[in-house]
Amino acid sequence: MRPYFDTCAPRPSHAFARAEVAAKPLADVPARRGSVDAVLATRHAGTQRLRLHYELTGPEGAPLAVIAGGISAHRHLLANAVDPAPGWSQALLTQGRALDPRRWRLLAFDYIGADGALDAPIDTADQADALALLLDALAIERLDVMVGYSYGALVGLQLAVRHPQRLRRLLAVSGAHRPHPYAAAWRALQRKVVALGQLQCAEDIGLSLARQLAMLSYRTPEEFAQRFDAPPRLVNGRVQVAAEEYLDTVGVRFLSRMSVTAWWRLSESIDLHSVDPTQIRLPVSVIAVEGDRLVPLADAVALQEGLGCHGRLRVLRSEYGHDAFLKDVVRMDALLASELAAPLPGVR
Amino acid sequence: MRPYFDTCAPRPSHAFARAEVAAKPLADVPARRGSVDAVLATRHAGTQRLRLHYELTGPEGAPLAVIAGGISAHRHLLANAVDPAPGWSQALLTQGRALDPRRWRLLAFDYIGADGALDAPIDTADQADALALLLDALAIERLDVMVGYSYGALVGLQLAVRHPQRLRRLLAVSGAHRPHPYAAAWRALQRKVVALGQLQCAEDIGLSLARQLAMLSYRTPEEFAQRFDAPPRLVNGRVQVAAEEYLDTVGVRFLSRMSVTAWWRLSESIDLHSVDPTQIRLPVSVIAVEGDRLVPLADAVALQEGLGCHGRLRVLRSEYGHDAFLKDVVRMDALLASELAAPLPGVR
Repeated sequence: MRPYFDTCAPRPSHAFARAEVAAKPLADVPARRGSVDAVLATRHAGTQRLRLHYELTGPEGAPLAVIAGGISAHRHLLANAVDPAPGWSQALLTQGRALDPRRWRLLAFDYIGADGALDAPIDTADQADALALLLDALAIERLDVMVGYSYGALVGLQLAVRHPQRLRRLLAVSGAHRPHPYAAAWRALQRKVVALGQLQCAEDIGLSLARQLAMLSYRTPEEFAQRFDAPPRLVNGRVQVAAEEYLDTVGVRFLSRMSVTAWWRLSESIDLHSVDPTQIRLPVSVIAVEGDRLVPLADAVALQEGLGCHGRLRVLRSEYGHDAFLKDVVRMDALLASELAAPLPGVR
Repeated sequence: MRPYFDTCAPRPSHAFARAEVAAKPLADVPARRGSVDAVLATRHAGTQRLRLHYELTGPEGAPLAVIAGGISAHRHLLANAVDPAPGWSQALLTQGRALDPRRWRLLAFDYIGADGALDAPIDTADQADALALLLDALAIERLDVMVGYSYGALVGLQLAVRHPQRLRRLLAVSGAHRPHPYAAAWRALQRKVVALGQLQCAEDIGLSLARQLAMLSYRTPEEFAQRFDAPPRLVNGRVQVAAEEYLDTVGVRFLSRMSVTAWWRLSESIDLHSVDPTQIRLPVSVIAVEGDRLVPLADAVALQEGLGCHGRLRVLRSEYGHDAFLKDVVRMDALLASELAAPLPGVR
């Protein structure tokens, strides 16, 4: 056969991709962006000098929430006074949502390792410690809530174990106390695909393919069956199935968002994640999605069981699986709103 | 980071791998092996001159069954008088099983494309046509049963549509009338991983990784949770999860079984597969496994619905998912036995 990939295309810039259409910035709401230097004793990589990057949006005096997303999320949550570009959680944080940016102060940060400068094993515990250092620097004693989605939920659970005094309550969405062994194997193979690409100039193709493989774990067969129920085509004597063009686009788009080193170390850090939920003594809402192929419902149930009276489990049914928090925004928001309004689990 | 793969290891021979420990050959049961030349009008690749390879085991006069397995299966089903090496379906065909080789004549064949010589799109319809030509050459008018597992089920369904007079009944195990769009996407990404490997001398690494990715679709999270529930290790500054060693072994072992071209074209042929079950007028037992991630139960149900009175659905629960026919042999055999003993669906 002829080679499938003819060339190594030049890679897009590593700068965070920005949507072309600007969202409506909250010009009347205070916002600031900054960085603080910190020295972090990491779990597997010794002591590291790191620069922690954050953004804080919302009126003074409002309750304070930390919002943390997936491994490719970052400090820019939404269009605001310091940056009019849409943020990664733009749709989750519009007016009227459970986390309305006019009623909450919203703090977000870049994950350590996300800049690609730290090429060593990173742990979710390190992320939580870094967050605690950031809170020190910002003189924030205690968060009213942390809402962690996916990787952010893992970091939130670590914060709850390691720095419980910094956190009033946690909403852990689509994340559990451990990586599921099957999901860990899936990620390990993604890393090997990237390593295969690194054998020569095809690092970008490897990372793009890894992202495409990850997408299969973020979504569900039900969604694919609806979107891609078309016969395959023959292109240059090869079979191309209906989902391939979409997956290609997803893969290439990812290249502008993250370097290989950042992705590798953050991917690993999910597999290093481990929390004993029985050590957590603050209220945790475990929000799971039925059909999540990355974090099976059974692991969310086990997490809630470990939390005992400190935990409450809410389950969303969504054909989007793990990505429901990004794709099923309205229904997820209704669930968050009802959870934030309900009495805290474990508190009388 | 240092390169993960340090070198391109020399690849094992393409000859079919043989287990070292010989099974007990059926010395007293007739067996023969042969090849016939055929001219096949293929669906996507014009007219092809092909050599069809078969093996026939079992007593003269016994009922005749064709056994067809996954894409890496072949004509050697079991240790017999012409070849004492264990076959791919050795465990399914021992004495006392539903398809006891002393009570059945068992015919098996190499899939077209399996020798890697045909580098063009292959269709499951072509496989069925090739089988019909083989039956012509062997002067076999009609099979008493075809038992198709996985890919073999797709070929069996095509035979039922295209050559119904050659087949009395079909047992279609873990295969449906169409590839599921999510499974098709999974296979397409495997092919891209192989293509990435082909960019340099790493074709074997690519094929090994593709096989490892495929394994995730052949098995289930439940099995992985039981087998690989161990913390990750740090090896050379990188994270290695519990399933990685096993998957590596699986991938490397595959290299001795199939060439890249054969694997690519057979993988594609699953995605080209399409059968209208309402055209089938002979008895079909659809045997599905709950939890099969490659052929979801919903597709087996749809197949049975399309077959109407000609189809009957049996469901096995197995933590092995798609690979239940290879791994949950005793329970699968009990199901086959009861199905073979039951009155034919659609026949009064």
